[in-house]
Amino acid sequence: MRIDGLQYANWSEKIFHQLREGGVDAIHVTIAYHETFRETVLNFERWNRWFELHSDLIMKGTTARDIDTARATGRTAVFFGFQNPSPMEDDIGLIEILHTLGARFMQLTYNNQSLLATGCYEDRDTGITRMGKQVIKEMNRVGLVIDMSHSADRSTIEAADMSERPIAITHANLFEWSPALRNKKDDVIRAVTQNGGMLGFSLYPHHLKDKSACSLQSFCEMIARAADAYGVAHLGIGSDLCQDQPDSIVEWMRTGRWSKEIDFGEGSAAAPGFPAMPSWFQDNRDFGNLETGLRDVGMNSEEVAAVMGGNWYRFFDENFGPQAP
Amino acid sequence: MRIDGLQYANWSEKIFHQLREGGVDAIHVTIAYHETFRETVLNFERWNRWFELHSDLIMKGTTARDIDTARATGRTAVFFGFQNPSPMEDDIGLIEILHTLGARFMQLTYNNQSLLATGCYEDRDTGITRMGKQVIKEMNRVGLVIDMSHSADRSTIEAADMSERPIAITHANLFEWSPALRNKKDDVIRAVTQNGGMLGFSLYPHHLKDKSACSLQSFCEMIARAADAYGVAHLGIGSDLCQDQPDSIVEWMRTGRWSKEIDFGEGSAAAPGFPAMPSWFQDNRDFGNLETGLRDVGMNSEEVAAVMGGNWYRFFDENFGPQAP
Repeated sequence: MRIDGLQYANWSEKIFHQLREGGVDAIHVTIAYHETFRETVLNFERWNRWFELHSDLIMKGTTARDIDTARATGRTAVFFGFQNPSPMEDDIGLIEILHTLGARFMQLTYNNQSLLATGCYEDRDTGITRMGKQVIKEMNRVGLVIDMSHSADRSTIEAADMSERPIAITHANLFEWSPALRNKKDDVIRAVTQNGGMLGFSLYPHHLKDKSACSLQSFCEMIARAADAYGVAHLGIGSDLCQDQPDSIVEWMRTGRWSKEIDFGEGSAAAPGFPAMPSWFQDNRDFGNLETGLRDVGMNSEEVAAVMGGNWYRFFDENFGPQAP
Repeated sequence: MRIDGLQYANWSEKIFHQLREGGVDAIHVTIAYHETFRETVLNFERWNRWFELHSDLIMKGTTARDIDTARATGRTAVFFGFQNPSPMEDDIGLIEILHTLGARFMQLTYNNQSLLATGCYEDRDTGITRMGKQVIKEMNRVGLVIDMSHSADRSTIEAADMSERPIAITHANLFEWSPALRNKKDDVIRAVTQNGGMLGFSLYPHHLKDKSACSLQSFCEMIARAADAYGVAHLGIGSDLCQDQPDSIVEWMRTGRWSKEIDFGEGSAAAPGFPAMPSWFQDNRDFGNLETGLRDVGMNSEEVAAVMGGNWYRFFDENFGPQAP
């Protein structure tokens, strides 16, 4: 089973075919960066249309059982998430509405301070806010998973501890392997995984050691080390694949409408666009390379299967429905 | 089994208890008259909160099976509908979004011309519009029932004929019994019922012979005559109960934001408010009176059970899910 914990491609029939060629059974896709509730509804609508037009290739996913259906019918199940809490605006009631529409992951912050928590690009991290505490309870209640990929350390640790259900870092790597601002330090990963949470490893070059030149072996060695440190059951892939996106999109991701000045995020004025993907992970057809790479660094077939999809499957199964009373 | 095909009460814990006292297993409630999509979302939210706070009395209904669950657990299943297509605005993609949120009925018009069809208060009835034809197909596809209670005759007959699935007049009576503008003529009811559709009988005094003074016997005799004319399988109750609403609400229902002048609808400048309900149907505890009344005019117990809920149950079961391919 192959499940990708995060993608934000410029979706097309071509990519839907590549998902099938790559044997990808399920993906979590970002449908909001800075969108309001109303704008996010238009993104749900766009996917509804794709599900209708490409019903032979993709289907909407809301529960782990949908992945079984997708596998049995040769399709990819698509699960929705937001990288920012902007779709819920300042209204806690929108959490259940968005979950009903299909949202299954929501980041409490995207780089900046939000109404709920602090983003990883802020100078000061004040942790989970008053509203954030209420929102965590409500997300727990309905089965909307807290994602702290773009959050600051203290906020992430507090979210992992406060949440009554496991949380996720859907797409990031180990800071000790590649000290990017977006990669995660040991105490952060420990807080998330010790509370049952998941870490999805990112192929986005700014999160990789040696960026676009990162070797498959180095990437897979990092995963093997993480398995030793945190337990293989808490690890998956969250490729952060942004295939076929124009560079205007990475500017939207970074700046949205919150600033009149361009923020280059992990890029720079000299290299403001999307970085080139590593040669061994260009698109969804390359998941087999990851499997080979994990085997080559000594992981056994059960461990490889867990990282490639089994762990996300179990996590989806346990965390997408209403909280047990 | 008791199912009410339309209510628009000023909901409260008191009324939820009365639903239980009256043995009402399911109700279709109006959650939009003139609301935009965004405003309708707030109305879904309000119900979500009531479902959470009063989970011992009510539950959200989306399929007929939810009525079984409600009965097994001593609750009332609440199904959502709109009296106007305003929640879908001018966007056909919102139909599936609204269905996903729980909408199961949508009127194509509310008294006035809409983007889709002509309302019963217009002078000229031009039938189903270009957009209306597309919307009927999409409502058929997802399982959102077309309700023509407030539509003009030609529009209603065209909708019944164009729709590939049965449609409904959730709340109206026979024009020949009480010639109100909102009551339905023989050819209209015939078009709806011959295509498998349903007519729900209204207790709203403006739709009753002798209005608030209407007798239970007269009301039930009308139902018995309709059973002879159109077949008992196509008949139900759609009480149009607007319990505990202030008169400002009937002004909102009639005028919304479409006019700066007050439109008195079925009322008048001298009597602009809600009319008094008949003595034998004051609130949800009075459904037993209807059963008694139907028996007293000679309907047998199977027929009474069909009208009181069995027919709506079958209709819900067949029409709330995706269209068979």
